Amino acid sequence: MSDYVYHLAKQHHSVRKFKPEPLTRETVKKLIEAGQMASTSSYLQTTSVVGVENPEKKAALKEVSGQPYVLDNGYLLIFVIDYNRHDLVNEQQAQDMTTSFESAEGLLVGTVDASLMAQNIALTAEDMGYGIVYLGSLRNDVTRVREILDLPEYTFPIFGMAIGVPSEDENGTPKPRLPFEHVFHVDTYDNDRDMARQQLATYDETVSDYYAERTDGRRTETWSEQVANFMSSKQRLEMKDWLQEAGFNKK
Amino acid sequence: MSDYVYHLAKQHHSVRKFKPEPLTRETVKKLIEAGQMASTSSYLQTTSVVGVENPEKKAALKEVSGQPYVLDNGYLLIFVIDYNRHDLVNEQQAQDMTTSFESAEGLLVGTVDASLMAQNIALTAEDMGYGIVYLGSLRNDVTRVREILDLPEYTFPIFGMAIGVPSEDENGTPKPRLPFEHVFHVDTYDNDRDMARQQLATYDETVSDYYAERTDGRRTETWSEQVANFMSSKQRLEMKDWLQEAGFNKK
Repeated sequence: MSDYVYHLAKQHHSVRKFKPEPLTRETVKKLIEAGQMASTSSYLQTTSVVGVENPEKKAALKEVSGQPYVLDNGYLLIFVIDYNRHDLVNEQQAQDMTTSFESAEGLLVGTVDASLMAQNIALTAEDMGYGIVYLGSLRNDVTRVREILDLPEYTFPIFGMAIGVPSEDENGTPKPRLPFEHVFHVDTYDNDRDMARQQLATYDETVSDYYAERTDGRRTETWSEQVANFMSSKQRLEMKDWLQEAGFNKK
Repeated sequence: MSDYVYHLAKQHHSVRKFKPEPLTRETVKKLIEAGQMASTSSYLQTTSVVGVENPEKKAALKEVSGQPYVLDNGYLLIFVIDYNRHDLVNEQQAQDMTTSFESAEGLLVGTVDASLMAQNIALTAEDMGYGIVYLGSLRNDVTRVREILDLPEYTFPIFGMAIGVPSEDENGTPKPRLPFEHVFHVDTYDNDRDMARQQLATYDETVSDYYAERTDGRRTETWSEQVANFMSSKQRLEMKDWLQEAGFNKK
């Protein structure tokens, strides 16, 4: 009975400025091993990880993401949904498994597996004193990421993670989350839209205050404003094609 | 600099037999709060959680999954991808955000968000002395799960989690994972299929030995055999329709 992980999880904030101290291969191996022990759907183990060390490749990935910390970090991991290994099994066992990779269900399994593994790595790294940031921005151009990393059929780069020692002037703090009452339901989903609107209005003030305090009043946007701006602009509508080109979400 | 979470993560195994000791609401709240602090794509917070306490609802969900531990546990959580709240924001901000929920990208964001939150909860619960098991089996019939939980449009039950005090005769152990060399690549994906076949052959022996030792030789199947059997039978090919009915993966 320990609350150690509870307190660690509550302290999380994404770190986007790192000291130029690379992680050792030994540390990277420990992180991957901790990640591999996360639950995996039906023991399928549908994740691979590419550790990117080559500065030119990191720079190319930074171009895709537009984020400097894709280049400047202690280590860069790319999480890959990987049914290429199951395709090898398929050849040897001579059973028809391809539908399983190519279905929407296969995509869900792969996405969940990779994410559980990654979050084990995130908490393990944070416990070791590193900071981390997820890089969904690599999905800006999946075709290009697949080229840079030589990814074969039945593999898909789902997100990256930059890890490293936080720089001295890194001063992030945990960002306020939606009210517990708004995200937690008992027995059925309570779709009371008036109540939900009220919860979001209160939360919008919390978020606006959080930004105002951290920026001396220069930023005051609410959560709703942020979300509306983001979701009405960045669509990544090519995702359906990118998935199908890699062999996913076809059935 | 601590290895606490590393060691905790390495000890994980799924628990499928629980004592009939319910978690308190206070404990559940702590778990959800730890979960909420996980990274969330662009601060979108696309997850809700339904805690299922009503025994009839639990029994109905058990029917969907076919697994007794969906009914018999200390607490049952259902993780829901939730763009219903963003749809509220959409109404108020009068911007067109629906494409964002309905795209394949929206599905990926929601699936990753829910999974990161869930794995924070898994590790926090395990640290508190509980055991957990993920329930992807609830995807056997998503329409039925949506009925049982009254899930509205733009919400999707992605998986469940049973939590509880492991029963006295629960004797699971960490299951061997794929070799590190097989899942980890540097700079590019090394698609050397002969090497991969060899790695899988060695791993197949490890898995076969693991089962043989735990069952006095009654089970000896390899990982490849398990994966081939599973993937050539359980397809959940309705997933594409189930996603679209809920408003997902349409664009």
